[in-house]
Amino acid sequence: MRTIAASVPLSGDAQVSYEALTSRLKKLSSLNDIEGIITWDELVMMPEGASEARGAQKAALAELVHLQATSAAMGEAISAAESAGAAEGCPWRRAVIRDARRDYNDAVRLPAELKAKEAELGAKGYAAWVKARKNDDWASFAPVLEELVALRKEMAAACADPGVSAYDYLLDKFERGMTEERLTEIFGELRTKLVPVIAKILAAKPLAHPPALESGTFAEDAQEAFCKHVSAAMGFDFGTGRLDRSVHPFTGGAGPHDVRITTRYDESVFMDAVMGTVHEVGHALYEQGLNKEQDGLPVQRALSMGIHESQSLFWERYIGQSLEFWKAMLPEFHANFPETKDVSADDLYRFINKAKAGFVRVDADELTYSMHVVLRFELERALFGGKVSVAELPDLWREKMRELLGAVPETDTLGVLQDVHWSDGSFGYFPSYTLGAMYACQFHAKAREEIDGFDELVAAGKFTPIRDWLREKIHNVGSLYPSADELCEAVTGAPLDPSIYVEHLNKKYSALYGVAE
Amino acid sequence: MRTIAASVPLSGDAQVSYEALTSRLKKLSSLNDIEGIITWDELVMMPEGASEARGAQKAALAELVHLQATSAAMGEAISAAESAGAAEGCPWRRAVIRDARRDYNDAVRLPAELKAKEAELGAKGYAAWVKARKNDDWASFAPVLEELVALRKEMAAACADPGVSAYDYLLDKFERGMTEERLTEIFGELRTKLVPVIAKILAAKPLAHPPALESGTFAEDAQEAFCKHVSAAMGFDFGTGRLDRSVHPFTGGAGPHDVRITTRYDESVFMDAVMGTVHEVGHALYEQGLNKEQDGLPVQRALSMGIHESQSLFWERYIGQSLEFWKAMLPEFHANFPETKDVSADDLYRFINKAKAGFVRVDADELTYSMHVVLRFELERALFGGKVSVAELPDLWREKMRELLGAVPETDTLGVLQDVHWSDGSFGYFPSYTLGAMYACQFHAKAREEIDGFDELVAAGKFTPIRDWLREKIHNVGSLYPSADELCEAVTGAPLDPSIYVEHLNKKYSALYGVAE
Repeated sequence: MRTIAASVPLSGDAQVSYEALTSRLKKLSSLNDIEGIITWDELVMMPEGASEARGAQKAALAELVHLQATSAAMGEAISAAESAGAAEGCPWRRAVIRDARRDYNDAVRLPAELKAKEAELGAKGYAAWVKARKNDDWASFAPVLEELVALRKEMAAACADPGVSAYDYLLDKFERGMTEERLTEIFGELRTKLVPVIAKILAAKPLAHPPALESGTFAEDAQEAFCKHVSAAMGFDFGTGRLDRSVHPFTGGAGPHDVRITTRYDESVFMDAVMGTVHEVGHALYEQGLNKEQDGLPVQRALSMGIHESQSLFWERYIGQSLEFWKAMLPEFHANFPETKDVSADDLYRFINKAKAGFVRVDADELTYSMHVVLRFELERALFGGKVSVAELPDLWREKMRELLGAVPETDTLGVLQDVHWSDGSFGYFPSYTLGAMYACQFHAKAREEIDGFDELVAAGKFTPIRDWLREKIHNVGSLYPSADELCEAVTGAPLDPSIYVEHLNKKYSALYGVAE
Repeated sequence: MRTIAASVPLSGDAQVSYEALTSRLKKLSSLNDIEGIITWDELVMMPEGASEARGAQKAALAELVHLQATSAAMGEAISAAESAGAAEGCPWRRAVIRDARRDYNDAVRLPAELKAKEAELGAKGYAAWVKARKNDDWASFAPVLEELVALRKEMAAACADPGVSAYDYLLDKFERGMTEERLTEIFGELRTKLVPVIAKILAAKPLAHPPALESGTFAEDAQEAFCKHVSAAMGFDFGTGRLDRSVHPFTGGAGPHDVRITTRYDESVFMDAVMGTVHEVGHALYEQGLNKEQDGLPVQRALSMGIHESQSLFWERYIGQSLEFWKAMLPEFHANFPETKDVSADDLYRFINKAKAGFVRVDADELTYSMHVVLRFELERALFGGKVSVAELPDLWREKMRELLGAVPETDTLGVLQDVHWSDGSFGYFPSYTLGAMYACQFHAKAREEIDGFDELVAAGKFTPIRDWLREKIHNVGSLYPSADELCEAVTGAPLDPSIYVEHLNKKYSALYGVAE
């Protein structure tokens, strides 16, 4: 485990070279912040008729950002800081220079023609996927997918450090330091232990729910008021953030001083907006908690997609889906939705923790979600390892669905064609979701050990000590550690351990469904 | 009068060089659009805590924009288009190359140290002005104002074409092609003819108004609903624009495809929001009506501040403040403000056309406003011509207030210190307001000649033919003409004629106040 040592001041040349580098990095970060704001604007505020002009604006900005990021001057500033020893004596400086080098190498190694091909093939792949999914026609999508796999291999060959496999290169883009080998270990254990638990729970008698929850109507304004109440209670700072509406909920904006989350409201299902908001606020608290002493520097950034997801899922799964949370929120819930006056915290707890087998990942519940991810990982691994061809994917999909969830979709539209992600070549992306859920579970277990009266705090709606614990241990640390496993070890004393996650699920769902653990 | 000839296609080299230039200009325009969006965001959406980070973002973008605008490559692209004869055969191309050259020369001639001094002195001047105004202490502001005058002279010496005076250089920044000589002619005639009219009206008996208008309460939501109704009726396109709230109303955004206006609501004075909205929609219709075939090119842009103001004031003064407009809007007005059910269109017309002498420009009415502007012009002209020193300005202010409006403020805070504009050196800016009002009046007279049943259309709330007339004659023409006088001649058959404006005011206010014309 690394320790965060106190900083030793630099002298002379080293200080000068470090400041010259950080000044460049901060300007680049400001330009990326602008990209964040205009993207948020595009999704939340922009009038429809401006979309073509916005595309031109983003392209013009991206061109300039790329020129800055790959300039000879940037390369020289990094080399100067490296050779002046500016990394010595301070882990923060070391991480800044490490990540500046990493970003620079990534950017300059990628040939312009591959970058252009990536954009072109991404658009082509998306269009082909939309059509194939609509027509349940895998054969029409397969050739483009083959091209996308070939492109990613080509990109890895051009950009990866020597000896790094194509799939490891792709995994690392989303989850720093993660490898196929380590993931095989983690997901192998997860699969072995969780499959029987899922089978046991799905065989139990389904839960019953009050009609006021299942078929009530929940006014948008009341939902928004309730969501704002929850956000504020969780410690979301409206002085450095906003909460708006958009078609697809997301967390965006421009770094810790300007974090913008969105949600959407459906009057027939209040729980989507509430849980969606809790999830996005989890992401937002991470952003708002990033280390302000490192403003605009690479070390300030979130460590990985998995760790980002661990923060949203910490709040969604381990706070928002807990009985204690609904005890705390019940009065405000009743006040906003008077027709639910007879609904108890326990009713709400049971309502949001239904488990059922389904074919579609995005509709999956807490219990079964990770198996959808394991399936995709196993397919990607086989594809990049040359063990399976694109043509074989649909059959393999069905086979694995049977093994993992005991349910086989009748069409490819509900199977191998369901996700958008492969259509632009985002291989290596799916594991982050489930890694995030498992990191969150391990963090939650540790937080309950370290924070006095954790469950009572949640039941009283007092989330500040919990937010502050996450802020100190995770948010504030940014990208100081080179991998999520190392952060996990620093926070919990051990690298990621899937058995903690399985144990949590087994215990929680066995109790809910009244079956033996 | 220039005519807009059909374009003759270019051949070979000329076409290649023109496309290379326009490609650069469009990228630069896209970056300026981004600046427009993040500035709007800052004023309307941004959380307070992000202001420092936003400052860094804007500085980083401005640096890049400046580098692009002054690059050797841009200079070479302009020269290449010029020497290949790309301007031949098409007035649009000619104007594009003309303005690209003008912008480029402006940008490269300004030395970096003057640009830095401008920013520094602007901040210093603003701080000094805030303090001086609070303490009614001209002497503390005077030295900074002297520095600002000296700076502007230095800038003019560095940037102006040979033989152009400093004040003409400054005027041209806001009002293309305008000179001190021409303005002396225009404002001289205005002053001579209007001063006696003002005196006559101010001596008449004040108008009386229904209490429901003078001391009613007007709910914000009802005001917003009414303002949106008015905006839509005027032809504001919500598919390429937005209407929001901000502390100071403005029109911003990013060119014709994304025009964003704001307003503010005060529950005790509905008229400010309504007239403010009509005014901003006037600006917005100009932006939305710019020539989309010239997207991202300099010729597409609004011609001058005065012409922009002519569009807002056309709608505010000659439509919104007309009796016919209130006949059209009365049912919607009553529907939104039921407590005004006994108020007639004539009551509303009289209410918004009150005239009274005041010391403060921003509170002035239609009748007296221009005299505040004439006063500032005469002071600026004397100051830059070396006829008067900064120390003499307060006395000269009082003297001119007596001559023009017969009312002398007791303090400098209500006099020479009232406006923010001189505090950052914005000399030459004020005339645009009154030029705009006069252009608007002359356009309005012409529109009433050319559009069948103009007054009846307004009284029926049918504004589309009027908007389309402005679009064809003014909006769509952008910066094709090199000066507002030439545009005015193209639209009305004559350059700006102040007597049309005076005649309008004399006729309208004599009738309202029951005195002889």
